[in-house]
Amino acid sequence: MQLLKDKIRTDGTVMPGSILNVGSFLNQQADVVLYNEIGREFARRFAGVTVDRILTIEASGIGVACITAQYFKNVPVAFARKFRAKNINDDFYCAEVTSYTHGVDYTITVPRPYLLPGESILIIDDFLANGCAIEGLAAITKAAGAVIAGAGVVIEKGFQNGGKRLRDNGIRIESLVIIDRMNVEEGIIFR
Amino acid sequence: MQLLKDKIRTDGTVMPGSILNVGSFLNQQADVVLYNEIGREFARRFAGVTVDRILTIEASGIGVACITAQYFKNVPVAFARKFRAKNINDDFYCAEVTSYTHGVDYTITVPRPYLLPGESILIIDDFLANGCAIEGLAAITKAAGAVIAGAGVVIEKGFQNGGKRLRDNGIRIESLVIIDRMNVEEGIIFR
Repeated sequence: MQLLKDKIRTDGTVMPGSILNVGSFLNQQADVVLYNEIGREFARRFAGVTVDRILTIEASGIGVACITAQYFKNVPVAFARKFRAKNINDDFYCAEVTSYTHGVDYTITVPRPYLLPGESILIIDDFLANGCAIEGLAAITKAAGAVIAGAGVVIEKGFQNGGKRLRDNGIRIESLVIIDRMNVEEGIIFR
Repeated sequence: MQLLKDKIRTDGTVMPGSILNVGSFLNQQADVVLYNEIGREFARRFAGVTVDRILTIEASGIGVACITAQYFKNVPVAFARKFRAKNINDDFYCAEVTSYTHGVDYTITVPRPYLLPGESILIIDDFLANGCAIEGLAAITKAAGAVIAGAGVVIEKGFQNGGKRLRDNGIRIESLVIIDRMNVEEGIIFR
């Protein structure tokens, strides 16, 4: 997706430790025009795939997921909440997730009524790096007896192993851009 | 807003302690069709008002804010993050907020580049009860040298004092519905 590559090159900042700061348009600040282009592109890539619901994770996935839902016949969007503590409760589907970026384990939860057996679920997230967040969302989807239509990712860090592991596990991943390499000296090298 | 009242009556649940659970369409699950009607109504109420940016707070304000931005010429949306610890850092605007619902104090932060001096800011949030969240967003807006165009609220709990205090402080509040009273016995009484 050329528009997104251009935006990342113009407004993204590569920081030490393979961190890409795209907060000014993708995370803590949302470029709603770009979000619409992203939603349109996900719809193009998943054309012909049944999608009953979009599932994402707080906080920065929510905006992209809601705008994207407009391109999938306004299906409902549910998001998983993150808790630092183990949060075992029969009212929720739960999964344990390790964030390597932040060096913490957390539990993600979705209320049971927001995922129904037999539904086809499109997972949407802004980043795919080690893949643990999407893996947790996939585990919750399966626990609900729902089917994973695929995962739409805005930016995949292709130099981390999450994308490969998820694809090896049979999940269709559509990443709008994949970064092969990035560092302060060279900048960003897209696949 | 009749559509919203109907939805709250049909799908909302009044719980002990003046808690209204509207998670199935307004919070952890988003009804994107309803979000669009909400955005359209905010645009109608703030017609003729300059809005350069929308400011909200994670997590459940983000979806409504992003959809609403589409009705304000796709202005950027920034959201404040919540931290349990004091989070003092020169890169951010910060405000201290007390959540009476959850019985905790937290710090909300917005990166400085996401609010510019002289801009006209529309605050959007899903709930207004004691008003502390919006008060924190207003304090951050003022600290940035920006102007508060007003605050668009989806549901105001009119029996709590936040709405009155914010209006007394000169902030224009547009609440799509105001609940005068609610309890398990009577249900919800709208103003």
